[in-house]
Amino acid sequence: MIRFRLDSDQGSPVRERAGVLETAHGQVKTPVFMPVGTQGSVKGVAPRELRETGTQIVLANTYHLHLRPGESTVAQMGGLHSFMGWDGPILTDSGGYQVFSLARLRKVSDEGVTFRSHIDGSEHFLSPEAVIRIQQALGSDVMMVLDECPPSDTDRPGIERAVRRTAHWASRCRQEAGLLPEGRGLFGIVQGGVFPDLRRESARLTVDIGFDGYAIGGLGLGEDRAEMLSAVEAVTSSVPEDKPLYFMGLGTPAEILAVVARGVDMFDCVLPTRLGRHGTVMTRLGNVVVRNAAYAGDDGPLEEGCDCYACRGFSRAYIRHLISAGEILGLVLCTHHNLRFLHRLTMEAREAILAGDYREWMNDVLARLRRGGVRSTR
Amino acid sequence: MIRFRLDSDQGSPVRERAGVLETAHGQVKTPVFMPVGTQGSVKGVAPRELRETGTQIVLANTYHLHLRPGESTVAQMGGLHSFMGWDGPILTDSGGYQVFSLARLRKVSDEGVTFRSHIDGSEHFLSPEAVIRIQQALGSDVMMVLDECPPSDTDRPGIERAVRRTAHWASRCRQEAGLLPEGRGLFGIVQGGVFPDLRRESARLTVDIGFDGYAIGGLGLGEDRAEMLSAVEAVTSSVPEDKPLYFMGLGTPAEILAVVARGVDMFDCVLPTRLGRHGTVMTRLGNVVVRNAAYAGDDGPLEEGCDCYACRGFSRAYIRHLISAGEILGLVLCTHHNLRFLHRLTMEAREAILAGDYREWMNDVLARLRRGGVRSTR
Repeated sequence: MIRFRLDSDQGSPVRERAGVLETAHGQVKTPVFMPVGTQGSVKGVAPRELRETGTQIVLANTYHLHLRPGESTVAQMGGLHSFMGWDGPILTDSGGYQVFSLARLRKVSDEGVTFRSHIDGSEHFLSPEAVIRIQQALGSDVMMVLDECPPSDTDRPGIERAVRRTAHWASRCRQEAGLLPEGRGLFGIVQGGVFPDLRRESARLTVDIGFDGYAIGGLGLGEDRAEMLSAVEAVTSSVPEDKPLYFMGLGTPAEILAVVARGVDMFDCVLPTRLGRHGTVMTRLGNVVVRNAAYAGDDGPLEEGCDCYACRGFSRAYIRHLISAGEILGLVLCTHHNLRFLHRLTMEAREAILAGDYREWMNDVLARLRRGGVRSTR
Repeated sequence: MIRFRLDSDQGSPVRERAGVLETAHGQVKTPVFMPVGTQGSVKGVAPRELRETGTQIVLANTYHLHLRPGESTVAQMGGLHSFMGWDGPILTDSGGYQVFSLARLRKVSDEGVTFRSHIDGSEHFLSPEAVIRIQQALGSDVMMVLDECPPSDTDRPGIERAVRRTAHWASRCRQEAGLLPEGRGLFGIVQGGVFPDLRRESARLTVDIGFDGYAIGGLGLGEDRAEMLSAVEAVTSSVPEDKPLYFMGLGTPAEILAVVARGVDMFDCVLPTRLGRHGTVMTRLGNVVVRNAAYAGDDGPLEEGCDCYACRGFSRAYIRHLISAGEILGLVLCTHHNLRFLHRLTMEAREAILAGDYREWMNDVLARLRRGGVRSTR
């Protein structure tokens, strides 16, 4: 089990909150952004650098690690923390999302899902029980249930089916996990597409089973922003307020702030690492495509006022040079900055929540992001 | 000018020696291995990590930096030290080797060399004076003269021509550089292929001009080892013993130790970074191709007894997983280790020289390297 303590009040309707998650590998202060270490490595960033950016908890993908190197290898090496050299908390997803988005030739039944590996085409079967056993072998602090994550264009009957199947699988996952030791937990996942009533129904079914936390799955897949937010509100008003709430696969700074305002505590996204690898950096004035020729003579840092290693030691001109010359270090520095950017953003969000002026702070941040468009800081 | 102090005696015939080079950006203890930062970055390694591996001095390529981003951009950013965030000594080559190996459509005359950029095909001209001006704009601590580096299959008359032209260019470089401030120096380059008499002739011509140090160019290009060593000996016996001697583009641990035994003080090579990027690590028992499946379950470090960041924190199994999964961190960790490996090797060589038992130490290291073949350390 995982303890979660709220440091701030939560009103009705549900609004922003600050909390602390107690895991077997340390505390996590929320709201928190979790960098994605898909294959047991946050792309381009060593564990000590993760710490330096302010990373509190890392997400790892069960699907990827199951296929390569396999959970038995990881377990043999002392578990994922030891394997990847990260002694902080780790959340593992169940692999459901990847099976439904990456793998080929899926056959889904109530028993589980049969799929072919995106790496070598080999056939695999994942049941709700198997994904729990895999996550336990990895040594995860926060495990996720197997869920059915239907494509965003699925019709209502398809979404209803996914809600029922997700609840059925969640129950089997809960059973398989049994009583978890202090600091280890299992989160349920709420599906339901953009239908508020299905979201409420899915939340009710999931909460009835009882989990250490709840997650919102199947959103942030390109749906309308208003639809997304009303689906979130349907969930936040249907899960217990004393449990952490995790929005899977979010997102942009604006999206994060909007869902924090609705009571969401945790997020993960490949955005900062993916943008970094493509030479784009996140700033309070919007994204800066530092690979652009415009920055070739810019002696300012990636972002004025940032305290990250990249901003303290290097100019945009140098990083732009590295990227255009194909040097790995350029992408590494951009990624490092982007992680620090999101951690500072959520850290400031937490401070604003505790100070009671989150809305004002958020509106100010959003206004600057929208104005954005500033090419150079000098 | 650059001061060089010998901490050990040098016998006759010339043998191993330990010295200290005093540059404007600090001391360099020799023998020293210089990592190659071709484009203003040692591939995959940030400056603070270079320090951590024990790097004392970095080499940067004038040819590459001239073409991209251009020395004027670098100068505008405060010079190469500031641009790349490295406050230690920097040696820049003259670009000669790259013009003769990388660029296309070369036209060489006594005036200089016309070539086309390997990046965009644009035409450029480099004169002896120009390469000095470029290196001064970069802010180099140790500059190199422009030399003609003929292909290894060049006949004797071709090598003779290169020796004469290199001496002519060296004289013009020396003139252009003028009187250099304390801690900044210019090295001459000795050519002459594998012909000991031409090496002696080239050394004589170069020493007559007078430089802060001397370099051996045009070796390590695939020639026979015995030929290489006798060419080295022809040079070491023809240059002043109180000046540093630099073998350009060496090499493997065995080659480095062999030329140290003949009085060479400085080396550079892309080997540790290139091997690292291909998932091969250097060890005292020979190279280990850690990407091989044999290491998938190996919980030992890259090299037993190594104190580098990769060896302290990660298993071969993890690094092998990263490499086979295409994760950047795998190559970064291998590169980090390889640099540390060569720095430890040359540091130990220095200690052995000062202790007076270099030959014994070297023979022991070479014997272990030859035995090698050890797959796993556990």
